[in-house]
Amino acid sequence: MTYQAPVKDMLFVLNHLAGLPQVAALPGFEEATPDTAQAVLEESAHFAAEVLAPLNHPADKAPSTWQDGAVTTAPGFKQAFRQYADAGWQGLSHPAEYGGQGLPGLIGSPCSEMLNAANLSFALCPLLTNGAIEALMTAGSPELRERFIGPMISGRWTGTMNLTEPQAGSDLAMVRTRAQPVGDGTYRLSGTKIFITYGEHDLAENILHLVLARLPDAPEGVKGISLFLVPKFLVNEDGSLGARNDVTCVSIEHKLGIKASPTCTLQFGDAGGALGYVVGQENRGLDAMFIMMNAARYAVGVQGIAIADRAYQHALAYAAERVQSRPVDGSSRDAVPIIQHPDVRRMLGTMRALTEAGRALAYVTAGHADLAHASPDADTRKRHLAIQEYLVPIVKGWCTEMSIDVASLGVQVHGGMGFIEETGAAQFYRDARILTIYEGTTAIQANDLVGRKTLRDGGAVARALLDAVRQTEADLQARTEPAAGRMLKPLREAREALASAVEFILANAAGNPNAVFGAAVPYLLLAGTTFAGWQMARALLASLDLQAEDPDFHNAKIATAQAFALHKLTQAPGLAAVVLGTAEYDVQP
Amino acid sequence: MTYQAPVKDMLFVLNHLAGLPQVAALPGFEEATPDTAQAVLEESAHFAAEVLAPLNHPADKAPSTWQDGAVTTAPGFKQAFRQYADAGWQGLSHPAEYGGQGLPGLIGSPCSEMLNAANLSFALCPLLTNGAIEALMTAGSPELRERFIGPMISGRWTGTMNLTEPQAGSDLAMVRTRAQPVGDGTYRLSGTKIFITYGEHDLAENILHLVLARLPDAPEGVKGISLFLVPKFLVNEDGSLGARNDVTCVSIEHKLGIKASPTCTLQFGDAGGALGYVVGQENRGLDAMFIMMNAARYAVGVQGIAIADRAYQHALAYAAERVQSRPVDGSSRDAVPIIQHPDVRRMLGTMRALTEAGRALAYVTAGHADLAHASPDADTRKRHLAIQEYLVPIVKGWCTEMSIDVASLGVQVHGGMGFIEETGAAQFYRDARILTIYEGTTAIQANDLVGRKTLRDGGAVARALLDAVRQTEADLQARTEPAAGRMLKPLREAREALASAVEFILANAAGNPNAVFGAAVPYLLLAGTTFAGWQMARALLASLDLQAEDPDFHNAKIATAQAFALHKLTQAPGLAAVVLGTAEYDVQP
Repeated sequence: MTYQAPVKDMLFVLNHLAGLPQVAALPGFEEATPDTAQAVLEESAHFAAEVLAPLNHPADKAPSTWQDGAVTTAPGFKQAFRQYADAGWQGLSHPAEYGGQGLPGLIGSPCSEMLNAANLSFALCPLLTNGAIEALMTAGSPELRERFIGPMISGRWTGTMNLTEPQAGSDLAMVRTRAQPVGDGTYRLSGTKIFITYGEHDLAENILHLVLARLPDAPEGVKGISLFLVPKFLVNEDGSLGARNDVTCVSIEHKLGIKASPTCTLQFGDAGGALGYVVGQENRGLDAMFIMMNAARYAVGVQGIAIADRAYQHALAYAAERVQSRPVDGSSRDAVPIIQHPDVRRMLGTMRALTEAGRALAYVTAGHADLAHASPDADTRKRHLAIQEYLVPIVKGWCTEMSIDVASLGVQVHGGMGFIEETGAAQFYRDARILTIYEGTTAIQANDLVGRKTLRDGGAVARALLDAVRQTEADLQARTEPAAGRMLKPLREAREALASAVEFILANAAGNPNAVFGAAVPYLLLAGTTFAGWQMARALLASLDLQAEDPDFHNAKIATAQAFALHKLTQAPGLAAVVLGTAEYDVQP
Repeated sequence: MTYQAPVKDMLFVLNHLAGLPQVAALPGFEEATPDTAQAVLEESAHFAAEVLAPLNHPADKAPSTWQDGAVTTAPGFKQAFRQYADAGWQGLSHPAEYGGQGLPGLIGSPCSEMLNAANLSFALCPLLTNGAIEALMTAGSPELRERFIGPMISGRWTGTMNLTEPQAGSDLAMVRTRAQPVGDGTYRLSGTKIFITYGEHDLAENILHLVLARLPDAPEGVKGISLFLVPKFLVNEDGSLGARNDVTCVSIEHKLGIKASPTCTLQFGDAGGALGYVVGQENRGLDAMFIMMNAARYAVGVQGIAIADRAYQHALAYAAERVQSRPVDGSSRDAVPIIQHPDVRRMLGTMRALTEAGRALAYVTAGHADLAHASPDADTRKRHLAIQEYLVPIVKGWCTEMSIDVASLGVQVHGGMGFIEETGAAQFYRDARILTIYEGTTAIQANDLVGRKTLRDGGAVARALLDAVRQTEADLQARTEPAAGRMLKPLREAREALASAVEFILANAAGNPNAVFGAAVPYLLLAGTTFAGWQMARALLASLDLQAEDPDFHNAKIATAQAFALHKLTQAPGLAAVVLGTAEYDVQP
């Protein structure tokens, strides 16, 4: 049940793949040195292991409960959240002017991974609060920012995202919650929101709901949606809390997993309307919400890596202890720990390779986000922003899809014990299952990747990334080590496969949208496999150079990169065949 | 929550793919005409839909409970089991001399699929009872057969399989349960067995435990294991029940899924030893147990098809009703049912294709089993037995692995609602997760496929099946319809991929067992994909011929075969690359 954050691997990725030195050279991030990163990660690892991880399984058995509108969180969550807030973790990557620590998102990413690996249900509360902070920071008026951001960063208050309604899930055009202008600059909201994570709880004094709603005269569709801030308790001018606002948690869901995270139905305006403040311009709510959603989508991708690593560590520990059957190569006459059996090695090796590749892909994306945000040069910012925006749906879609596979392999490694809830492996399988759904399903990510990220720029970013992969192939080709040669062939084939898929999508989107969008998820998975494999190839090259410094670590990385090549990159041509075949083959639902 | 057995598809497979006419021509199976098959399947479908399916979700919420050694099954199970027994379903495929109906296993297979699709937890009790009947029928003495088989067939008593102990799961060599000869031909057993499905319950008057144990002087390892019949209540000469035997259910497990099926820890011999009868010869228990296990392994493969179909039907119904978003091709200005969206079509089409392909593969295997059992000619029996034995681990491994994927897709089709337990999709995802584990994990199936089924005959059966695939390719090539051409290419590539994997295994098993057994699961998945795709190609050919009779059904089948080709057969070369790469690539667990 323990969790030990893989600090060494995280630092390797930060320093050698994701460009921490370049980020630390940006104005404002001077403190983000490798030493600082190490210190922060070690402290975060300590908190995750000691405070949060032990609460995870008990909280699954005794999840959050609802009574008379109030939610009581799982045992220990309240104290843990106090510790989390008091240590300043919520403000890690937020600006110092609001009380944050101003570190780059690149350093925030591993800390977020640890939090989620230790306790996914707990970590959702800070995750949503981060999204609310981002949205206010970008779109909120100076008054809103001044009054509401500080208390979220200090952990006195938390934030939520209120998008979904019973008839409006993936399709936000169907949002019906109403906002009536009062005349004094405020609004009165009424309507029902469902699936609101931490929409009600007892961890903090106040909850700030960011709510999508329509004004009375709003145009139809997504261009008539505005974003509002609706506090659970009204906030006085001096920042003290006033009366309870007209928003109530009427129920929480009985879910497959993340049971300790309360998923609320919120009723707004049963007593005349919930007081709200508009965030950004009227009818432009989706712009602000997209800021929040992009941050949240990336963060959910990191949740995938987190749960995958937790499942991997759990299975690895079991496999090292469980003794069963003699080895197939006759090397022992006695039964051995199952980690010595080839298929268990295959499963664990695959779990590890997927996890490390996902981590590398995600942190590299975070590096681009920091460069997109803080580079002094506008063209540089633009270039990195385009790459970040291309990669976010891939991080979200690919890392969460793989997390389900990894968690399922984790159950399998445990054999019959994996099906028994006490063992803990089953919880990861249940918890992971939400990740491909919330913050936009894999299909929503894939449609975004096809529409906004591939077609809109005529494939420019996709092709630029493919060129970068080709450069890595050249680097591999220049090496004499056999491991580099073994990595090269499947990487090249994957890159060629992805290139063919990109060209297919560009060529067919206008004429055959059903085929192209029917191929969107396979395209996303192919892109994720290729770019994650690319990062593993870069990792292999770095580890070949650094081998002497720490042979155990780097030899394992070189082997893990090959495991990724063998088990995942080899699947890329098959995915391309699916993409290219959608125009030709019938499918019967 | 409803389930409608796909009787039409089942009959199509029986009649046009799995050789029901040939089976009905065998001595003893004269009554197994297509008309009889249809009547039996329709009656079974009625029972599944009306009696068992409605109990499935409530039983998940109010599962079986344990108190003071007694297990109370879920609400409605007792009445349903009475109906099941009274209608004679338990005896469907068992000989008339014991009160069965003597129909071939080929007709039993779809009935078993329906039972499991309607209610997997319930169906496990008849499934295990069937295994016990098989074992006694094959290895039991005339006295044991006479006294114990009839009451199981009539449903008065049920049967269990007692293999696993805390230290002996996949490795039966480590079984420690002891059997002491009493001197009168009976034995006294003592020990602990875990994970005993329906090891205790209130559905029947008596329970017959088939138990692996060791005699005091038994050789070590698997050659010192004997099989015993241990009744819960002793049975008098006249068949009436006597005293309670010394076997107690000390607990049941808290599981991820199939919660209504009690998974028991049984304690034997706490009061001096549980009375048992040896089944077959002393120390040859594994031979008899393998009979039971082969039947059970096939049956678990059918469970995979069953849960996949249930998950598919559930998702299809939701997708037809749930309205969300406009179509991507601009064909409507309004939001449409999500079944019209390309990615939902992809998911449902994949679910359907996997399910129908699994069904075809399994029933074809059942046809070989009937021919192996009842053909008058010994060479014919031998030939079909070899094919059946090759296919059983594939049916078990491939159909259960795919069932997890299908159940997971079913959750995904539901979006956020899929994660809410009330929706029901999550139950299939939880229930399916045991199928790749019990009755031998996928790795155990794969090792069996490699060791006993591929290496032992030098690849003869594998190559013969590959030749049969090639014949189907020739049949496709001879057709002018474009659908046949689209099927041909991926089928040929899959067959070539599988052939390369078979040759790799034959060539490397002796020299590099770790690589070969590390490739065993990918080999099994490749074989399953190829042979299931082969059956879909045969189905496509049959449907091209029969199209005019029932255009809706056959056009859907032609499209579904193509969906299988597009989404699964295309993945075969990638699986072969994994198999062939294991000798070369490192993997780091």
